[in-house]
Amino acid sequence: KSVTVEKVIWTVSDIKGSLTIKGVKKPFKSVIDVSSGDPHKAGMPPISFIRQVMAVCLYPELLKEKSLPLDVRQRAQKLLDMCSGGSVGSYSTTSSGLPQVQKSISEFITRRDGGVPSHPEDIMLTTGLQKSLSVFLNLLTSGEGKTQTGVLTPMPCPHTLPMLLDMTGLALVPYRLFEEQGWAVNLDELHRALEAGRVHCEPKAIYISNPGNPTGYVQDRETIEKVIHFAATNGLIILAEEVHQDSVYGQDKEFISYKKVLSEMGTTYAEKMELVSFQSISTAHIGEGGLRGGYMEVINIDPAVKKYLTVASSASVLPQLALELSINPPRPEDSSYNSYTQVRGLSYGNNAKRACEFLNRVEGMSCQPSMAGLFLYPRVHLPPHMVEEAKRLGVKADVLYCQRLLREEGICVGPGCENGQEDKNYHIRLCILTPPSTLEEILARLRSFHHRLLEKLA
Amino acid sequence: KSVTVEKVIWTVSDIKGSLTIKGVKKPFKSVIDVSSGDPHKAGMPPISFIRQVMAVCLYPELLKEKSLPLDVRQRAQKLLDMCSGGSVGSYSTTSSGLPQVQKSISEFITRRDGGVPSHPEDIMLTTGLQKSLSVFLNLLTSGEGKTQTGVLTPMPCPHTLPMLLDMTGLALVPYRLFEEQGWAVNLDELHRALEAGRVHCEPKAIYISNPGNPTGYVQDRETIEKVIHFAATNGLIILAEEVHQDSVYGQDKEFISYKKVLSEMGTTYAEKMELVSFQSISTAHIGEGGLRGGYMEVINIDPAVKKYLTVASSASVLPQLALELSINPPRPEDSSYNSYTQVRGLSYGNNAKRACEFLNRVEGMSCQPSMAGLFLYPRVHLPPHMVEEAKRLGVKADVLYCQRLLREEGICVGPGCENGQEDKNYHIRLCILTPPSTLEEILARLRSFHHRLLEKLA
Repeated sequence: KSVTVEKVIWTVSDIKGSLTIKGVKKPFKSVIDVSSGDPHKAGMPPISFIRQVMAVCLYPELLKEKSLPLDVRQRAQKLLDMCSGGSVGSYSTTSSGLPQVQKSISEFITRRDGGVPSHPEDIMLTTGLQKSLSVFLNLLTSGEGKTQTGVLTPMPCPHTLPMLLDMTGLALVPYRLFEEQGWAVNLDELHRALEAGRVHCEPKAIYISNPGNPTGYVQDRETIEKVIHFAATNGLIILAEEVHQDSVYGQDKEFISYKKVLSEMGTTYAEKMELVSFQSISTAHIGEGGLRGGYMEVINIDPAVKKYLTVASSASVLPQLALELSINPPRPEDSSYNSYTQVRGLSYGNNAKRACEFLNRVEGMSCQPSMAGLFLYPRVHLPPHMVEEAKRLGVKADVLYCQRLLREEGICVGPGCENGQEDKNYHIRLCILTPPSTLEEILARLRSFHHRLLEKLA
Repeated sequence: KSVTVEKVIWTVSDIKGSLTIKGVKKPFKSVIDVSSGDPHKAGMPPISFIRQVMAVCLYPELLKEKSLPLDVRQRAQKLLDMCSGGSVGSYSTTSSGLPQVQKSISEFITRRDGGVPSHPEDIMLTTGLQKSLSVFLNLLTSGEGKTQTGVLTPMPCPHTLPMLLDMTGLALVPYRLFEEQGWAVNLDELHRALEAGRVHCEPKAIYISNPGNPTGYVQDRETIEKVIHFAATNGLIILAEEVHQDSVYGQDKEFISYKKVLSEMGTTYAEKMELVSFQSISTAHIGEGGLRGGYMEVINIDPAVKKYLTVASSASVLPQLALELSINPPRPEDSSYNSYTQVRGLSYGNNAKRACEFLNRVEGMSCQPSMAGLFLYPRVHLPPHMVEEAKRLGVKADVLYCQRLLREEGICVGPGCENGQEDKNYHIRLCILTPPSTLEEILARLRSFHHRLLEKLA
């Protein structure tokens, strides 16, 4: 298999590279990087309870430390009992995870889906979304030219996905999400995309991001049913990235899992349709990206493939414990309950609404209201002089916009081309899970930059 | 690519499965599992300093905790300063690791190799040996039948390797290590193996385990030079698994890295020969398997492949910090110095010698002296009645031996067939990095079982 990384676009690091001009005094005090979903980097505090319990697990002498809440120490003891030799330094009992954590997760999913059963042996603990996706995508890779495996991929899509598909040797078959429909999935477009894809490859899977990254769109049951029907009819495996399931804040919106809908569509679907749901501790409300953990639930997947996935997961222990804590948080009677729920209640909903309203008032910007997740994905109107300059410099215009924004205001956002978009409209991506004061700073600097840009035109 | 996991032999889990017979009272108090290199599972304490610093990094409130040594808190602050947003919950600045950790590792390697320079950009932090190997092996995969990529692999080899090669779709081309030569690499055998391999596949890489897993053999400079020459002549990439480099205890033995020898063989080799060295925090003296961390040093690797590896590594933050601590341990003036060096000084050397002497005195057993690492790999003489019974049951005789040992004595060791060996001589694999009293218990139960087995024969 040849490595096809030539096409890899490292736009954000290119942008960051542009900061290193020596001897030039910057007009801002500090760089704020909200180009990826990395809330701690932008100053969001971690959830103390989770960090406390993990600290005790790492250094069990702290079990005696009275300054730590009792429920923290009790939970730590419980988690240590799950580990071989009572140590987080031992391997998981099985490569797919600690059995008790697999069980907890399947119970959580069963509760989440209103009783639709989930089985521990279908839960594979992983070292994060990127790793689990790449393991699974590797299994799909085959063929060359017209026989190359294709993956139907939403446009815009998560900004790490195009590179991952490319690196794995899979063909990206784009299906557009329509901005004027709030970035909803459109069935006609799916059919068009599939036909178009079949001309140059063999589409075998469809990638779903729900709640949508970076769009924040939450799919309703009807849409999900139609997508499943479409996938079933056309022999596509569903890869459902559902990492933002616990951060839905849109009014009257709720997260419905593909698994739940599938199981309610009758045995033809429930017992045959291949589905993998991906979850992560990086982008959910805990936001522990640095820990690199997550899980897959695999439905109707061939036993040999399952065995392979079991071996290939090799999850580390600490992120599994963090997952266990996040799905079984402190209860009202526990001393950490208040602090835990305060942090959970914070920020993304309010921040998203505030930022969206703000951006829609800036001339030359518009933003679809987001219903979930950590990102906003506003459209930015670029003046012709910038588009022309970009052409002259041989960079994409949205990349140039982001480079300038970073250089002039110290704000790092992601260009829409990283999310796979290549149409006439330009977009930027920003993570809104920051402390509220930081968000205000970001918005003010962004507006100031954008106004200057438009003035230049006038 | 089709998944070829049918051949996967899960012998240890099969053996463990045999423990679940209900209602039968076991003649032992507890099971001791030394089948893999997982010292914490067998009761080895972790290194307090490393655990303390990581605990503080996870929960920085502990920076104020006076009961923790001052140097622990100072180091934790230093490590937190390396993390984006001062949090271990942020992603590494680059996907290949925290730049300061890459720098520390390259400085460590330069020191280790007596000044042969190592470059931070050649260091890729990983989520452990298995993951980094599988990422790299995936890149080598191509062809089918006679064009399938082959990897020259020592026999015996690390027990996780045959499955990994199989899962990745690579052909295993065995080269034997000779027990009577203390498990040394034999150049004639390499030539024979390569010729034999070329009949059914295209060998493109050679896997080296030095110090040898499970043999404990340490290669000398002359051997390494010859292997490099052999690989260069035949266009093979060298995959040097050097995870036991810091646990050499054999008299007058020292670890010499392939990188060092390569760089001293002149520019033809130093600037052309493709070499990847793999390191891990699981099996070295820290033994933090549950953390899943490690690094690769990549030499003369194509820039596109390097870029791919950079992206594919996705190392988590905590294991990187553990690595940083282990290569820059406390200094004599630090308060944690004594406890750190005590733990480091412990066990494997003494244990290996003790166990080797013990086993060589047991009738029907013989063991080559080990010079490094965590394993012993003794030969066990199986009486004909057991070989015949195994044949009747359709299991391998060494597997049956291990099953019986576990069932009758509660000791779990690994059968040599897992290490890829398929000759007339049977072997078992055991990890000797346990508390000394546990080791005595293991040896006593093993001898008692083996004696009973031989008596049955008589």
